[in-house]
Amino acid sequence: MARIVMKFGGTSVADVERIKNVALRVKKAVDAGDQVAVTVSAMAGETNRLVALCDSVSELYDAREYDTVVSTGEQVTSGLLAMALQDLGVDARSWQGWQIPIHTDDAHGKARILGIDTDVVSQRLDQGQVVVCAGFQGLGSDNRVTTLGRGGSDTSAVALAAALGAERCDIYTDVDGIYTTDPRIVPHARKLSKITYEEMLEQASMGTKVLQTRSVEIAMKYHVRVQVLSSFSDTPGTLVCDEDEIVEKEVVSGIAYSRDEAKITLLSVADRPGVAAGVFGALADANINVDMIVQNVSADGTTADITFTLPRTDLPRALKVLEKGQEDIGYARLEADKNVVKISVIGVGMRSHAGVAQTMFRALSEKGINILTISTSEIKVSVLIAEEYMELAVRALHSAYGLDAQ
Amino acid sequence: MARIVMKFGGTSVADVERIKNVALRVKKAVDAGDQVAVTVSAMAGETNRLVALCDSVSELYDAREYDTVVSTGEQVTSGLLAMALQDLGVDARSWQGWQIPIHTDDAHGKARILGIDTDVVSQRLDQGQVVVCAGFQGLGSDNRVTTLGRGGSDTSAVALAAALGAERCDIYTDVDGIYTTDPRIVPHARKLSKITYEEMLEQASMGTKVLQTRSVEIAMKYHVRVQVLSSFSDTPGTLVCDEDEIVEKEVVSGIAYSRDEAKITLLSVADRPGVAAGVFGALADANINVDMIVQNVSADGTTADITFTLPRTDLPRALKVLEKGQEDIGYARLEADKNVVKISVIGVGMRSHAGVAQTMFRALSEKGINILTISTSEIKVSVLIAEEYMELAVRALHSAYGLDAQ
Repeated sequence: MARIVMKFGGTSVADVERIKNVALRVKKAVDAGDQVAVTVSAMAGETNRLVALCDSVSELYDAREYDTVVSTGEQVTSGLLAMALQDLGVDARSWQGWQIPIHTDDAHGKARILGIDTDVVSQRLDQGQVVVCAGFQGLGSDNRVTTLGRGGSDTSAVALAAALGAERCDIYTDVDGIYTTDPRIVPHARKLSKITYEEMLEQASMGTKVLQTRSVEIAMKYHVRVQVLSSFSDTPGTLVCDEDEIVEKEVVSGIAYSRDEAKITLLSVADRPGVAAGVFGALADANINVDMIVQNVSADGTTADITFTLPRTDLPRALKVLEKGQEDIGYARLEADKNVVKISVIGVGMRSHAGVAQTMFRALSEKGINILTISTSEIKVSVLIAEEYMELAVRALHSAYGLDAQ
Repeated sequence: MARIVMKFGGTSVADVERIKNVALRVKKAVDAGDQVAVTVSAMAGETNRLVALCDSVSELYDAREYDTVVSTGEQVTSGLLAMALQDLGVDARSWQGWQIPIHTDDAHGKARILGIDTDVVSQRLDQGQVVVCAGFQGLGSDNRVTTLGRGGSDTSAVALAAALGAERCDIYTDVDGIYTTDPRIVPHARKLSKITYEEMLEQASMGTKVLQTRSVEIAMKYHVRVQVLSSFSDTPGTLVCDEDEIVEKEVVSGIAYSRDEAKITLLSVADRPGVAAGVFGALADANINVDMIVQNVSADGTTADITFTLPRTDLPRALKVLEKGQEDIGYARLEADKNVVKISVIGVGMRSHAGVAQTMFRALSEKGINILTISTSEIKVSVLIAEEYMELAVRALHSAYGLDAQ
């Protein structure tokens, strides 16, 4: 007997039939003797419908009222799933964020969970009742409903699992696990049986949409074992867990890519202290996140070129900021390129393994792919390349690290 | 400056454009210096959609989960209207039943309001903020959402007006007031400028769907002046108020009718004590409300015929109960008729005016309409007639009491 949290995303509860299927899946766990808390998303399309209503009422809506409106999607699913469970003879009750309550800060629309009062729901679990929680939502101050941002139900589920001391948090979604890379690009990509929190975080930050970044952070902090699996099959998924739990660590566990990149180069920047601060301060003030940064000093040592990457969607705003600040910053010319992608090689094994970056550079060079920028972290090496080489690069790297399925 | 409650029904908030129109109407009241609390229904069609979801998940659903699901309709409207008001520069905030809170009993799906904590919302009104309340919903015990039954937003609004000590509760709907009878049957029916609570209650009990019965009861108990008016025009509506406030009382203020009737006659019932109790006890146990009752003793005094009316929808169940109990009750034969209607003449003036019933009987007789059953209350005379005569009877009575517009 274990205490587990099961989370079902929007496609898993898209219609009444699927909700009934979810109920069957939950019943199986209950019948096996588990104590089960369920976290549900809104039925697929529902959140979009509600957001569109808000958008059409007011361009600059009050985020508190937005949360009031949008949180109803999860409320509906929670009630329907509780009904479906009762229909199968399973004792169940729905819980909204404010009923548990799940306390959050007041950053409406992207609130962070501060704490969960689990006294009552924990009691219900002990009594054998299934606790069906509306995901995505919490309770802020002044008794108001908050939401956690897109994908927030993952975070609800993992936070609940942490607070309840659950043995595992199963995230049911429309993919059946985490792969060594995107199977649409590399058909022989392999599903991983386990992956570390750190690697999952790097994947999430690369735009792999399987889990919300925040949920992985919480899982890592509280050592919640998270399983990603499909609600449409019965095959085992991928377990996101502590490194200790993975016996056979691979040096590289995945190749990730992100199309959401753009590159800016400032040419002939005066090579004096404070210049970089000027550039990146102005961008930070505009709430633009800069990623990779490279600075080359010119031959004569008087000027430098600064290259950096940023989210492609922020490019127009960034250009505006930089052009306006040209005099203050002091650069001669600006070049922008949005036909670039970032490719990353991720693996906790590279901490103790030399030559990982070298393998990457060689593999790309053999295919004639030019590297525009490089950045590294403890468990990741990323390069920026021209977008047209993306698929080629991913496939080359997937082979180079021996990730192709047999 | 007055404190008022404005209530907008589903058709008044059916889409974003109408919600914006409602916001303009509220703004007008705010600009005039009023303190305004608004109660809103779900957008037209939304409650039906949510009920259908519940129905398709489970035939015998948990009423508590039903309330969780169905109450979201009003939650969405409250948030959207608060946004729309803010967009017009009006300070506003949405309030759910649990946030105020509006305490109710635990009769989920048809809960009754026990009390409203108005401390906080009253403060907000004093500060000039518009209080936008989700109608139809409240907070039961165990921290659960309750709903008040179909039309419950009227009750929410009137109860809120009572608790806030509001000067008036304006119910915006898709009709522009209360008429002397249904204008679809009598085109020259007149709109009443005022009507008493008692008359309105009799109208509501006859199935006039303009106001939920419970809301009129609360209005009467707490002397809340309720105005029924259209959200699609600017003409004054009908004020539902104390009798004292109506200077020119009419003897009869309206002709109501109900198609929702059926008649059962038990023939040759043994004429001994306890027989009626046996019949109506069995029906009461089956939760069937009996309305008009007539008992005739036969010529020889040994048997009686008992005739009574009941809601047409309950007829099949009633027949089953009575047929099963034939031996215990002791009757020879049973006749049922569902092609009957009830016509009522309503008016507080008849308390002090003789001959009202006589006028009714004469008018019907002149048209050759046979009266099947009669029942009277202090301010109402009702007759049961064959359904085919309904329109004829309503028109004849409308003329007989001088209600036709000039």
